[in-house]
Amino acid sequence: MHALLEQIANIVGGGNVLTGDDVAQRRVDWMTSASCRAAAIVRPATTDELARVMRLCHAARQPVVTHGGLTGLVHGGEASPEELVISLERMNVIEAVDPVSGTMTVQAGAPLQTVQEAAEAHDLTFPLDLGARGSCTIGGNIATNAGGVRVIRYGMMRQQVLGLEAVLADGTVVSSMSRMLKNNAGYDLKQLFIGSEGTLGIVTRAVLRLQPRMASEHTALVACPDFAGVTGLLAHMGRSLGGSLATFEVMWRNHYALLTEESGRNTPPLPARWPFYAIIESLGNDDALNATQFSAALESAFEAGLIEDAVLAQSDTQRQGIWAIREDIEGLIDTLAPLFTFDVSLPIPDMPGYADELERSIRQRWPEGRLVVFGHLGDGNLHVSVSVGSTDPETRAAVEQLVYAPLAELGGSVSAEHGIGLEKRAYLPLSRTPEEISLMRTLKQALDPQGLLNRHKILAPEE
Amino acid sequence: MHALLEQIANIVGGGNVLTGDDVAQRRVDWMTSASCRAAAIVRPATTDELARVMRLCHAARQPVVTHGGLTGLVHGGEASPEELVISLERMNVIEAVDPVSGTMTVQAGAPLQTVQEAAEAHDLTFPLDLGARGSCTIGGNIATNAGGVRVIRYGMMRQQVLGLEAVLADGTVVSSMSRMLKNNAGYDLKQLFIGSEGTLGIVTRAVLRLQPRMASEHTALVACPDFAGVTGLLAHMGRSLGGSLATFEVMWRNHYALLTEESGRNTPPLPARWPFYAIIESLGNDDALNATQFSAALESAFEAGLIEDAVLAQSDTQRQGIWAIREDIEGLIDTLAPLFTFDVSLPIPDMPGYADELERSIRQRWPEGRLVVFGHLGDGNLHVSVSVGSTDPETRAAVEQLVYAPLAELGGSVSAEHGIGLEKRAYLPLSRTPEEISLMRTLKQALDPQGLLNRHKILAPEE
Repeated sequence: MHALLEQIANIVGGGNVLTGDDVAQRRVDWMTSASCRAAAIVRPATTDELARVMRLCHAARQPVVTHGGLTGLVHGGEASPEELVISLERMNVIEAVDPVSGTMTVQAGAPLQTVQEAAEAHDLTFPLDLGARGSCTIGGNIATNAGGVRVIRYGMMRQQVLGLEAVLADGTVVSSMSRMLKNNAGYDLKQLFIGSEGTLGIVTRAVLRLQPRMASEHTALVACPDFAGVTGLLAHMGRSLGGSLATFEVMWRNHYALLTEESGRNTPPLPARWPFYAIIESLGNDDALNATQFSAALESAFEAGLIEDAVLAQSDTQRQGIWAIREDIEGLIDTLAPLFTFDVSLPIPDMPGYADELERSIRQRWPEGRLVVFGHLGDGNLHVSVSVGSTDPETRAAVEQLVYAPLAELGGSVSAEHGIGLEKRAYLPLSRTPEEISLMRTLKQALDPQGLLNRHKILAPEE
Repeated sequence: MHALLEQIANIVGGGNVLTGDDVAQRRVDWMTSASCRAAAIVRPATTDELARVMRLCHAARQPVVTHGGLTGLVHGGEASPEELVISLERMNVIEAVDPVSGTMTVQAGAPLQTVQEAAEAHDLTFPLDLGARGSCTIGGNIATNAGGVRVIRYGMMRQQVLGLEAVLADGTVVSSMSRMLKNNAGYDLKQLFIGSEGTLGIVTRAVLRLQPRMASEHTALVACPDFAGVTGLLAHMGRSLGGSLATFEVMWRNHYALLTEESGRNTPPLPARWPFYAIIESLGNDDALNATQFSAALESAFEAGLIEDAVLAQSDTQRQGIWAIREDIEGLIDTLAPLFTFDVSLPIPDMPGYADELERSIRQRWPEGRLVVFGHLGDGNLHVSVSVGSTDPETRAAVEQLVYAPLAELGGSVSAEHGIGLEKRAYLPLSRTPEEISLMRTLKQALDPQGLLNRHKILAPEE
């Protein structure tokens, strides 16, 4: 290892091979604040430096773990003392913006928020948005196919990527930096690297698709009488607003009440007595038209009995007040800790039955147990938090079983947007068939036969 | 071969193994009407039948070519007398529609138009749309990642597919029939089969994403004074209409004039004297609001000097009259034959320079030569037709060189939406790097080591 690190230092510079305390003081997990245990952290400045580092690692059969903003939730950043960390923190440059074609060329280490702001400077928008925007990086967003609160309008990260560059396990640079919206010239190789959590290659640069900036944003918080109201409202708003519907987030009462009246953490814009709450946003550019369309849609939803009560944000402060409830993850941790958090998808019609049954089965086993549910309902994606007073491994396994097992029958997924990492490996077979997992192994073997990249993430070692 | 066909007949039934005249009378190429030359055409009724057929073919090292609606333009359906054709024409059932989640489960042989109509029956829409809608199949749309006239709003076929089932070269059935909009549980395997032109697996079934139906459609034909007007108009309409902008198609004057005043084939809604014409469509559900927004956007474009003249379709007949010009491919063939057609993408700002230079270079070599340009401008995609009086191989090679060579420097693509097939194999290196092509070969080798599926399509045999 020592000789290898010296060779690597010759490429990236001695100051960019961190060891000892410089490694240990780095937190690899946002939820647990666990320390980095890697042998060293290597910080290349360019794709070429990284390619040369990987050629050395390949020759030495040295496994590596790639680090972006470390905001993941499935232990994707975990590294053992036998592994090196490749951190892309120095490759954070926005290389170019083409406002006519609506594209931006960026290095993987650029934070999401920086990218959003650079687009706005050209009167455009980069539509991916999630709570971790200040810390998460574009490379991490790509490697995990990040979702967020605008998926219903703009799709996940996969749909924002036009071109991509990655370094393979043997140091080969695969550069597919197409700026084209349409490019059917052979296999679309970038798809391999999007959402494969760094196990098939290290994403180094990308060409992102930008969208016209929508200056007029309208936000409402509504209360629904029942789940039929929620799904009816989703269909109604989709039909009424068409391409203007940008967000449809739902909070079960157990979530809304906890973070408002019960804990006092946030002021409730509506009383916490209804079973479901939705945050709905509309995006447009003609503010008068957009406002008329939005209120008309809400009014007709009210008349149709789909909603019981509603508040339209009249200012940015009111809008932030509504979102503060939805994004108060700290509040969840403070009020529920110790807790387990989950990120599942399932068919929308099955959601209320799933959540009710889960609450029942948790209470049956842990009478003091609590379940809190919210999520991107328009995307079929729920975030479930469970608190049963302990997080020991047996308890974890028991809770995971209750949360995940029903998904197999419903055709749902154990991971909607967070990925598999180490955290959900054992449950992958609940969402994927043996043939699918076998094909994943075929791909891993074809691209990284020595198993050097984020090893044992997603796919556990074969027995 | 005879023994193999008997075994296959035992699986699919003797009436579903076509030979002799039944094969020869089938046209494999829409443009040239070339006959099918395969040893036989096999028509399985189910995924299981196809899997058993492929297990036999794998054991016998028997190559196959998959047929959908045979509307492709790159000779993807071509088969030699040593190959078998697998036709999915009997697997054309729409299995299920879930209107709440907005999904449809279909077999690969279902025609696009049937799928569109089935969605409409549930007050939803399947947004992929292209001229061949009556004949092309969903499986073919998937295998070629079809584009069409709504890409700017809804994306290409890749974005319409939630789940997918494919049969691999060895008969393994990989079923990823997820109905989830979000599913980050491991590698997104369906991406492998979308756009790989049947070379990695045979697509048998899919779960499609449906969209809210937009009942209000507004269409305009506008004339622009110059290319700056066209790109300015695209940005302006994108900003003004936001998610309502559904189509932005452009015709160069050489296209518009030929199919209207010059040939008399279509009545020109606007005189043919302007350099560029655009068809713009807006989709919504509140007809009054949508109409107001659309006219206001066109009016301000007029005031800003982006357009010279415009006509708004006042009836479905007028709308069809506008689209008839754009979709008059028969007219192109009749007036230009013999001709070559191309489908390229390039950065939008480079388009006028590219088209002008191409016209110059063609006229220089063939003074009577003609160039006609139209396309999905909002997607960076142009369709170029070239007529120089001959289609012999030397002429073809010379014209292809003129059309394709400049794209390499511009970072464009030799295939925006039609694919590579056999037609564009030689030019793949203009759009993809040696490392990319090598990685494509790695994938082909990993999934189809015997090279049985659509052999030598996309990737030519290695020398």
